[in-house]
Amino acid sequence: MAAHGDGFSAAATEELMGQLEKRPICTIVFIVAMQKEAQPLIDKFGLVKDVNSPFPKEVAWVLFNGMYKDLNINIVCPGKDATLGVDSVGTVPASLVTYASIQAIQPDLIINAGTAGGFKAKGASIGDVYIVSSAAFHDRRIPVPVLDLYGVGMRKAFPTPNLIKELNLKVGRLSTGDSMDMSPHDKESITANDATVKDMEGAAVAYVADIFKVPTILMKAVTDIVDGNRPTSEEFLENLAAVTAKLYESATKVIDFISGKCLSEL
Amino acid sequence: MAAHGDGFSAAATEELMGQLEKRPICTIVFIVAMQKEAQPLIDKFGLVKDVNSPFPKEVAWVLFNGMYKDLNINIVCPGKDATLGVDSVGTVPASLVTYASIQAIQPDLIINAGTAGGFKAKGASIGDVYIVSSAAFHDRRIPVPVLDLYGVGMRKAFPTPNLIKELNLKVGRLSTGDSMDMSPHDKESITANDATVKDMEGAAVAYVADIFKVPTILMKAVTDIVDGNRPTSEEFLENLAAVTAKLYESATKVIDFISGKCLSEL
Repeated sequence: MAAHGDGFSAAATEELMGQLEKRPICTIVFIVAMQKEAQPLIDKFGLVKDVNSPFPKEVAWVLFNGMYKDLNINIVCPGKDATLGVDSVGTVPASLVTYASIQAIQPDLIINAGTAGGFKAKGASIGDVYIVSSAAFHDRRIPVPVLDLYGVGMRKAFPTPNLIKELNLKVGRLSTGDSMDMSPHDKESITANDATVKDMEGAAVAYVADIFKVPTILMKAVTDIVDGNRPTSEEFLENLAAVTAKLYESATKVIDFISGKCLSEL
Repeated sequence: MAAHGDGFSAAATEELMGQLEKRPICTIVFIVAMQKEAQPLIDKFGLVKDVNSPFPKEVAWVLFNGMYKDLNINIVCPGKDATLGVDSVGTVPASLVTYASIQAIQPDLIINAGTAGGFKAKGASIGDVYIVSSAAFHDRRIPVPVLDLYGVGMRKAFPTPNLIKELNLKVGRLSTGDSMDMSPHDKESITANDATVKDMEGAAVAYVADIFKVPTILMKAVTDIVDGNRPTSEEFLENLAAVTAKLYESATKVIDFISGKCLSEL
């Protein structure tokens, strides 16, 4: 139902969105959980660390930015935990940096790029780079009507049929949770989410971006096979460098494809 | 190690914190996940909905504020999910509203008040109101050295020995996760966290508040017994109204105790 006297009607909002989708894409924010995953992209696009960070002085969030072709590229990492010195992975820091980046940078497009576990039963292999069709949570079980759906929090990524076809990328659903391992309860929810890839941030980035209606692409490179016979953490650490290179290669192609295009051409 | 040429030294920061702790408390932000839990407090303190919300227009976050005695009281709720119409419970919305509230309101003190599950093996009964001594996560399992500790993310609440003694409140550790139920993996982590109460927001609020060094109190009222023989969701819904009244009673006493005091007197 269209709201009366409450700014835009639903139809007007849709028309505005349609117009925005026909403007060339200018500003992109990459949300990347680990700076190691981001470094090859920072180097490739010639980005520099923003010394006048738009974020509060208390946070460890790091912004790298610069122009690449016609695009204003920003890479935001949640940075190191102040106490423990490790990357601030997971949904809470990812949601915070997505929120703060949208407020400060007002991107036309968000790209959440990172590593993920893949399910061989769904066709995933180490080094595959997936474009995510939808993201949902697998560790928010709330067995109360409607709150159960809220917990799953499924959100569709921005559709990019031309990009997927042109770059010949694999497409799959993503399931997000704050654990690196997979408990039997997680497994059940991941199966219900029909996920091919499993990460620790994607659905949280998609949740925040959806509030602000910022189109979002999620790219996930497979570092480990979840339904294989090796421990995730071992396989993850072993493949991180090589798979990050694959992610870098695909992200570069994606950015080259996006350059000069508007959202509706993706 | 004290940083050189990087603002305050550790010693200077500590001294500044010490001075701040000796100023009367002025501004309090309550973070409350469900507006139903907040309503009795909103009524008691005579708060009104802020029509000029400091939050972006796209979010459903609701701010109620007003003066009660000498205190500027703010209650922030993450509000209803735009698609599903249910309360936006869990760590992601809780961390976002905590972050945005700190930026907009700059409170002297945060109080995360809400309902929780309690463990009878640790002495909890329905209707008990706990002051939390420390909060940690139980659903962020990352079996990689140091990242495992980051996942648990244990944070101490602001110590309030006088408040606890004067109001004769129970004290216990809190464990936070995004599920209402408790899987065997959750149970193991909750036991490791030595938790008496279990909720869906506390550790996330404490995480964000800790980044900004805002003193935080967590008050949790027990709606259901996790290690009892009834399903959590059933017991939760049945006791919500009565237990919210208990929470309201304790929160009122806490605010009356805080009025006119400085942090170091709590």
